[in-house]
Amino acid sequence: MTKNENLKTYTLQEVPHYKVHGRTDSSQYPLPLFWNGSAIEVNVTGSELWIDIDVDFDCHEPWICCAINGAVMSRQMLLPGSYSLCLFRGMSPEAVKNVQFVRELQAMSEDDACHILIRGFQTDGHFSPIPDRKFKLEFIGDSITSGEGTYGAKEDVDWIPMYMGVSRNYAALTAQALNAEARLISQGGWGALCGWDNNPHHNLPTYYTKICGLAGGSVNEALGAQKDNPFAEWQPDAIIVNLGTNDCSAFSQPEWSDPETGETFKQHLNEDGSFRADDLARFEQAVVDFLHVLRRCNPSSYIVWTYGMLGYNLSLAITDAINTFRNETGDIKTFFLHLPNTTEETVGSHMHPGFASHIRAAKVLIEYLQELLHA
Amino acid sequence: MTKNENLKTYTLQEVPHYKVHGRTDSSQYPLPLFWNGSAIEVNVTGSELWIDIDVDFDCHEPWICCAINGAVMSRQMLLPGSYSLCLFRGMSPEAVKNVQFVRELQAMSEDDACHILIRGFQTDGHFSPIPDRKFKLEFIGDSITSGEGTYGAKEDVDWIPMYMGVSRNYAALTAQALNAEARLISQGGWGALCGWDNNPHHNLPTYYTKICGLAGGSVNEALGAQKDNPFAEWQPDAIIVNLGTNDCSAFSQPEWSDPETGETFKQHLNEDGSFRADDLARFEQAVVDFLHVLRRCNPSSYIVWTYGMLGYNLSLAITDAINTFRNETGDIKTFFLHLPNTTEETVGSHMHPGFASHIRAAKVLIEYLQELLHA
Amino acid sequence: MTKNENLKTYTLQEVPHYKVHGRTDSSQYPLPLFWNGSAIEVNVTGSELWIDIDVDFDCHEPWICCAINGAVMSRQMLLPGSYSLCLFRGMSPEAVKNVQFVRELQAMSEDDACHILIRGFQTDGHFSPIPDRKFKLEFIGDSITSGEGTYGAKEDVDWIPMYMGVSRNYAALTAQALNAEARLISQGGWGALCGWDNNPHHNLPTYYTKICGLAGGSVNEALGAQKDNPFAEWQPDAIIVNLGTNDCSAFSQPEWSDPETGETFKQHLNEDGSFRADDLARFEQAVVDFLHVLRRCNPSSYIVWTYGMLGYNLSLAITDAINTFRNETGDIKTFFLHLPNTTEETVGSHMHPGFASHIRAAKVLIEYLQELLHA
Amino acid sequence: MTKNENLKTYTLQEVPHYKVHGRTDSSQYPLPLFWNGSAIEVNVTGSELWIDIDVDFDCHEPWICCAINGAVMSRQMLLPGSYSLCLFRGMSPEAVKNVQFVRELQAMSEDDACHILIRGFQTDGHFSPIPDRKFKLEFIGDSITSGEGTYGAKEDVDWIPMYMGVSRNYAALTAQALNAEARLISQGGWGALCGWDNNPHHNLPTYYTKICGLAGGSVNEALGAQKDNPFAEWQPDAIIVNLGTNDCSAFSQPEWSDPETGETFKQHLNEDGSFRADDLARFEQAVVDFLHVLRRCNPSSYIVWTYGMLGYNLSLAITDAINTFRNETGDIKTFFLHLPNTTEETVGSHMHPGFASHIRAAKVLIEYLQELLHA
Repeated sequence: MTKNENLKTYTLQEVPHYKVHGRTDSSQYPLPLFWNGSAIEVNVTGSELWIDIDVDFDCHEPWICCAINGAVMSRQMLLPGSYSLCLFRGMSPEAVKNVQFVRELQAMSEDDACHILIRGFQTDGHFSPIPDRKFKLEFIGDSITSGEGTYGAKEDVDWIPMYMGVSRNYAALTAQALNAEARLISQGGWGALCGWDNNPHHNLPTYYTKICGLAGGSVNEALGAQKDNPFAEWQPDAIIVNLGTNDCSAFSQPEWSDPETGETFKQHLNEDGSFRADDLARFEQAVVDFLHVLRRCNPSSYIVWTYGMLGYNLSLAITDAINTFRNETGDIKTFFLHLPNTTEETVGSHMHPGFASHIRAAKVLIEYLQELLHA
Repeated sequence: MTKNENLKTYTLQEVPHYKVHGRTDSSQYPLPLFWNGSAIEVNVTGSELWIDIDVDFDCHEPWICCAINGAVMSRQMLLPGSYSLCLFRGMSPEAVKNVQFVRELQAMSEDDACHILIRGFQTDGHFSPIPDRKFKLEFIGDSITSGEGTYGAKEDVDWIPMYMGVSRNYAALTAQALNAEARLISQGGWGALCGWDNNPHHNLPTYYTKICGLAGGSVNEALGAQKDNPFAEWQPDAIIVNLGTNDCSAFSQPEWSDPETGETFKQHLNEDGSFRADDLARFEQAVVDFLHVLRRCNPSSYIVWTYGMLGYNLSLAITDAINTFRNETGDIKTFFLHLPNTTEETVGSHMHPGFASHIRAAKVLIEYLQELLHA
Repeated sequence: MTKNENLKTYTLQEVPHYKVHGRTDSSQYPLPLFWNGSAIEVNVTGSELWIDIDVDFDCHEPWICCAINGAVMSRQMLLPGSYSLCLFRGMSPEAVKNVQFVRELQAMSEDDACHILIRGFQTDGHFSPIPDRKFKLEFIGDSITSGEGTYGAKEDVDWIPMYMGVSRNYAALTAQALNAEARLISQGGWGALCGWDNNPHHNLPTYYTKICGLAGGSVNEALGAQKDNPFAEWQPDAIIVNLGTNDCSAFSQPEWSDPETGETFKQHLNEDGSFRADDLARFEQAVVDFLHVLRRCNPSSYIVWTYGMLGYNLSLAITDAINTFRNETGDIKTFFLHLPNTTEETVGSHMHPGFASHIRAAKVLIEYLQELLHA
Repeated sequence: MTKNENLKTYTLQEVPHYKVHGRTDSSQYPLPLFWNGSAIEVNVTGSELWIDIDVDFDCHEPWICCAINGAVMSRQMLLPGSYSLCLFRGMSPEAVKNVQFVRELQAMSEDDACHILIRGFQTDGHFSPIPDRKFKLEFIGDSITSGEGTYGAKEDVDWIPMYMGVSRNYAALTAQALNAEARLISQGGWGALCGWDNNPHHNLPTYYTKICGLAGGSVNEALGAQKDNPFAEWQPDAIIVNLGTNDCSAFSQPEWSDPETGETFKQHLNEDGSFRADDLARFEQAVVDFLHVLRRCNPSSYIVWTYGMLGYNLSLAITDAINTFRNETGDIKTFFLHLPNTTEETVGSHMHPGFASHIRAAKVLIEYLQELLHA
């Protein structure tokens, strides 16, 4: 390789213009990308650009993708270490290239060691400002929002990072169509009340107010994950919640019990297959409570609770909770929207919505938000 | 024209095998086709088939279409008189042809003289039995279910029969995909509580229990329109309600007043654009009441209230009513489903959903019913 | 029916503005519509429009469709007689409506009695001028261009008018997309050299220079069918030929023989399945000869020979003929274009291209002509 | 990262089952992947798989992608060095995973140092046999077949490896649909006679008989690139040629001249914009000559010359050459097929066919080959 002698190294502090996507603790250096869809974005001239990163994990390796001028060029797993990745090379030096280095993998509650940290860039070009996008959107969800199934063959059933991603999911498609900045907060298998396996700790609301509360362990804590999220600094125009799918599964799964504490939890079906009233009520209460939290943290955002990409069964419970919340508060900016269910033709790997299902759901959501936001 | 000397005339009573679709009074002769989608179906050999009909109207002429072997071959307006229409000719005599002669136009509450009556057939062939379809579906709706906008250019804005039809609407597409027999009960501009113009008499529930209660006048009465519908004879597997769109419009329209009685009616918006609570409550009560009627008439049918093809604004009110009904009754077979909104690309004539919008909505509904009915 | 007392009858001569589509003898009254796609077009105000026609046939009844503002509203068979058809009624009187009354059925070489003649209109409105379209296109073909298979169920195999049409065929789709006036000259089963059954008289070139040379009998002759077509009056921007499909079939079909004259004809395959050289040569010569005729009649039109919708087998023979013609003449405005073959998913009735196949082929052709005509 | 202690290293010789795609010199170790689409494929159990490679280049870095069970999981640039890449990890150990490690980048005639060499694998699993695919296909082309434009934003215009690829191109889509093994031989900017810039050395036929004749320099020579390709070992069922696009450009480009030798070359247009006869003749002769070479090397393969994805202008010249070849040889297994042109909606980066255009072209080609190969 002919060496480029003109590369200059910039620590993040030395980069005059860059934009960070996704919740993070901006006081950190190197800077963590906690969530899927978290990214660092630059506009840069020059023929060549490298990014300097620190990566580690215990068992679940992070994946990233890199988009040049809005088009995904590469997608790859990251191995542990402190190293540099070339994002582009050989390009016309004078043109400004927009580059987004994006975390594909969700925050990993099951791997406290998993992280991607940004140290800085190397380039022979110059950085220029990045215009603000027209809207801000926050997506809160489960494996659907973690893009599980958007990569991989239909017969693949492993639960591994490779099959998850933001680059083909409805949240990214929606943000791109609306020229919006997107923040994603999602965890596969989790719900509004409990996880798919009845684990009552696996719910997003518990962790919503922290920067990345579900990233555990001392390393993540040192990276700022457990700090309060500074909501005032970034208020979304709309919050899209996509939870309920795992809460629904829980009704059909065995009781969860904590081997250490003996704690148990179980959502029950009646004999006729309907949801047991008291269990449904506590799911609804969890939705109501979460809406209160969302509204408190985001006083003027639209809130759209979406549901349906993996079945419609809790629709009426969710709308009941939304109606309760609206009655309790007089809130008129909270809504419900079905996203089309996944079919045999649109399913992806691991029985999750495939790219085609995400495209279809995104279309409905994009149209909805265009009207809501007068986009 | 070379005359076919072998044609034989059959009054309806003489036709050994035929099937009537849509609610009607089977004791009548000639037999009325009251609703859009109402049809007479035969399986017949022979080279040629004619249908003998009586037609009249005051200002809104009925349209029909004719499908051979499931494919729509002709669509035309009918002028007044007692006459015969050739449905096919020149065909291979020995083959059995499935023929459906279908009323495209909705029942016309605004034209008491409008009717199509079936006298019989003329053919050189023989009639054979028509196998039952796998499912029975009942669709209850407004102009969307009357297929307004599925024909015509985008710039067309007249409210005339030509632009309405069943042949391209979501109900017919759904029935065909599921191999189901469909009955439609719909009226453009009407709602669950009131019409688009706040007319409180323009609601489907008032007329649901009659054969075709909204067809007024003495002629229709003599044809059996005001008789009680014999629900026991035809119980649908699923009832699809698609009402609410006009109830929503009413909130933005001026007060309705009856010039004769001085009666007035008006649904109101609050100053912030939200629905006034008491007006919303009476809409919801109308939905609840209608669900009770539907359940009483159809004890074991699934009921799916669909909504969204022309806007999602009353979604939470409808789901609230469904939840109220379920709580009052313990009913677990009543559901809610969003159908995708109509967009600039999918709109048809008169600002109504076009064929493309009906195809898209039908896909979501078909998938939903396939799962519900284990189809 | 409430009678419209304001209808006024206009003979064609009294209609101040109308446009005739398709080759005809404009000196005739009533005016014949010989070819599929032949039409009469008016721009008219008023609430109601009727057309006065004369129709007859021996065994193959003509079908027509009527488009209002460019959208097909009705499609129906015509029975013999001299009568009036209502094309619209109940419309806003002041608006100008564009109306096209279109012959769906091809000219019928097998039924000398088959004809549609236009006498005039009845309306309560006024006629206004019809702007010229941007381009003129002439389509010359076989059953594909006669739209056979664009209507009807896949299992339908009768060769009858009902299954033919222009309203869904690639020629109409192309003309509409390009804002072009289209003339169609086509006959099912015919070729450039011979018919599908080796009948050497069933070729379009023989009849090209007459107004509608293949419409036989004294009635058609009296209607002007056998007159020389006045090419100078209407020169197309592009001629699209779509012939060769039946010439290809002939190679696999038995020898044709004329029971009266004993004349025989047969195109042969070699034992290895390839085309016999001398038979291929006479097919190619027929193509060359036809190109000479086309160029003589249309000195400056682009000529695009299209092929492929029912198989690609004669592609190299056709291009060889085109190259020969170009070498003989120096002509540089004659081209070749494949249209995509019909597949199981896109096939229509009678094993012919269905609507989906016509849409797909039209897309390729539209793109081609847009570039050629700088549209 | 938790280290996998069970990884075992296999040199290629030690791997009991693997399959190499694309022309290469199988006597080499490490094994070169010369062409885009060249790949090494294994079926392997285990939780983890690494590949050991040697990479170098001067200015144009190679890109690869990795497909697991047929789905592309990663795509990335390769930097110089001798190193290992993790292809999967964390998978269910017992399941057999199909893995293809694929060269995205075309052979690079402009960078003699550019290469990817395979040393072997590391895994904790076991290798199993790879079933043969049903067909063998060879694709010969230019930038279209090098997949230029299938990645990248529409406004991107650099000529760099990042925008080229096999993973989204028509050749890969066709091979996958037909369950075929594919070999690609392509070079951006090259033609059948000369390059887009009139460079007469930039034609594929010159290099066809060598393993990878256009890969120059001593390194490539040592890797076997200049050896005769062992045609007898791999005879394709069909050869798809997609050349002519750059030959067409040459007519509109300035004369090429070699600064060193003074050699010049130029294809000319006549003043009326048509191709000059003698220049067209030498293009046609190049096509004829190449067909002779192809047939000599592949005695019984079908040869389908495809054309059109970036314009149809040389169609008649190409078909004339094919006809000449068929006349000279009696060959009846050589054909011509148009692939649909690229439009504004389907264009990709650098004004080349985008993914959508490749999907559309592949569909036509797949259908064609299914019929030809009775697939």
